[in-house]
Amino acid sequence: MTEQNRRLVLAERPSGMVNDGNVKMDPGEIPAVGSGEALAKVRYLSIDPTIRTWMDDAPGYLPPIGIGEVIRSGGIAEVLESNSDTYQPGQLLFGMTGWQDYVVADDGARAMQAIPPGVPPTTALGLLGITGMTAYFGLLDVGKMKEGDVVVVSGAAGATGSTVGQIARIKGAGKVIGIAGGQEKCSWIVDDLGFDAAVDYKGENVAARLHEEAPDGIDVYFDNVGGEILNTCLAQLAMKGRVVICGAISGYNDRTGMTGPANYINLIRVRGRMEGFLILDYFDRLPAAQAEMAGWLAEGKLKSAEHVVEGLDRAPEALNLLFTGGNIGKVIVKL
Amino acid sequence: MTEQNRRLVLAERPSGMVNDGNVKMDPGEIPAVGSGEALAKVRYLSIDPTIRTWMDDAPGYLPPIGIGEVIRSGGIAEVLESNSDTYQPGQLLFGMTGWQDYVVADDGARAMQAIPPGVPPTTALGLLGITGMTAYFGLLDVGKMKEGDVVVVSGAAGATGSTVGQIARIKGAGKVIGIAGGQEKCSWIVDDLGFDAAVDYKGENVAARLHEEAPDGIDVYFDNVGGEILNTCLAQLAMKGRVVICGAISGYNDRTGMTGPANYINLIRVRGRMEGFLILDYFDRLPAAQAEMAGWLAEGKLKSAEHVVEGLDRAPEALNLLFTGGNIGKVIVKL
Repeated sequence: MTEQNRRLVLAERPSGMVNDGNVKMDPGEIPAVGSGEALAKVRYLSIDPTIRTWMDDAPGYLPPIGIGEVIRSGGIAEVLESNSDTYQPGQLLFGMTGWQDYVVADDGARAMQAIPPGVPPTTALGLLGITGMTAYFGLLDVGKMKEGDVVVVSGAAGATGSTVGQIARIKGAGKVIGIAGGQEKCSWIVDDLGFDAAVDYKGENVAARLHEEAPDGIDVYFDNVGGEILNTCLAQLAMKGRVVICGAISGYNDRTGMTGPANYINLIRVRGRMEGFLILDYFDRLPAAQAEMAGWLAEGKLKSAEHVVEGLDRAPEALNLLFTGGNIGKVIVKL
Repeated sequence: MTEQNRRLVLAERPSGMVNDGNVKMDPGEIPAVGSGEALAKVRYLSIDPTIRTWMDDAPGYLPPIGIGEVIRSGGIAEVLESNSDTYQPGQLLFGMTGWQDYVVADDGARAMQAIPPGVPPTTALGLLGITGMTAYFGLLDVGKMKEGDVVVVSGAAGATGSTVGQIARIKGAGKVIGIAGGQEKCSWIVDDLGFDAAVDYKGENVAARLHEEAPDGIDVYFDNVGGEILNTCLAQLAMKGRVVICGAISGYNDRTGMTGPANYINLIRVRGRMEGFLILDYFDRLPAAQAEMAGWLAEGKLKSAEHVVEGLDRAPEALNLLFTGGNIGKVIVKL
């Protein structure tokens, strides 16, 4: 048996959750290594909600994944062979690996970044990766969180949400409230991560509980979910409140049925702001933020949680976890 | 017949447009003039969409009008009699007159502002009043309009919208596009006010026409209407686009049916912002803005349009005009 490059390609566009017919295994040859290129073996995949949006034929910040193309995804790969001065065999690289066994890195469009020695690969994908950086800049730069602010975050047991709450705590928020689904997640964010309060949207009246926990309103709401929770938080914004739009996981599987938040109109009364962002715009500021986060991690102020799924073939299943809420922390596929 | 203070009071809360049963004439005595007070005869009422929101029993930036209370409204009144050093007989004052014949001014909660000599009362209510100031600060301060920006404004033939477009033109917008209902309004904003283009939402496909007029997207969208037009503009925002939420006239008569803009999610892709504001926050900066606007007015760069309705008893009818689109420019009731 000749060794192959197993590739998961988009066979057809999903209409809800990703099913077996949507993503198919389509093995190809292991790429040849040209001049200035390196061949790397994919070790970990970063499973993020945005992957699901790339599967739709809808305008986005990146073009949709084409039918027959490998599923686009961040990941970590180890250099096996290199014809480039940039990459050395044995080195771990972060970049857009895609859902496949092998990836080629070069100095151009397929450039990848070396992971600093001593950083565990899963941390490089999570707290110090796109996830952690999204939390950091979303909360501090877009949300302009100040000391004493009441901060609410949804998807609070997810990779981004759990990081947002911890950063808010470290940076002196007045109160940090997480919204998550189920008692296990709620206990985790309060007992293990140090959130001040948790609201279980599956078992509690979110509006009533938020009003109880934040009677003077919400200064920063970091939104990962959209839908009714966004609408509720808009109604409870404090004066000059900020809503950070990071994602809308409640709507990604059904764009046509996606509803808008009617309470956006409350932005007038409270002179509030709702703003979207992409971490792409912060790439020049990542090193400083990563250094600050690494410091907190070393001091034990920041905790990392990963939900690791084994096997490339289980990547679609891992992606679906984000929408069923089956994960706590960062979802990673280990090859 | 003893002279009375005719007062229009809220008899019951409207559920849609204001009807005869909602607002009733309830005459009272002409107020006595106490120490430090002045009695003024109301000459003009400023008819603004926000009045309709005050009639609902819903939280707002001001408390709802109580049942049996005079309808709250801005207006202009002439001082008849004064026991105050602040006010002189014959002086025209701007302030919260309410829908009635007489109003008392004092130096406290019922303070009113003198209209500078030479300013026509209707201009004081319109371009140099709350309407004009809302347009000015909404566009320049909240919307941060810069030279070259593509500006879109809805309710473009209304008091605020028509002013927004003219200020954008004066301040060097790249293109100024108004959305209005009907050919007459569309011709007026282009031919008389100098907008670059008009979209007739009653007769044209707004999304298609906006795309044609602003192929690179909208930098600032000034929203007076909410609903489907807001949703369409959100989908066509340019990178770093700003949506200024000034009002939502399409929803004021039916809050329960008010829909939210599902395309708010596009704020992520374009790194856009949607922000509400109230002119209350800009009171210390009004004099400078009024001086700038008065200069443009004197130079003929800024045009004023008023739709005057005669008679206090017709104030409810005048208010309804704002929602049927029966007006061009500022709606004023002349007593």
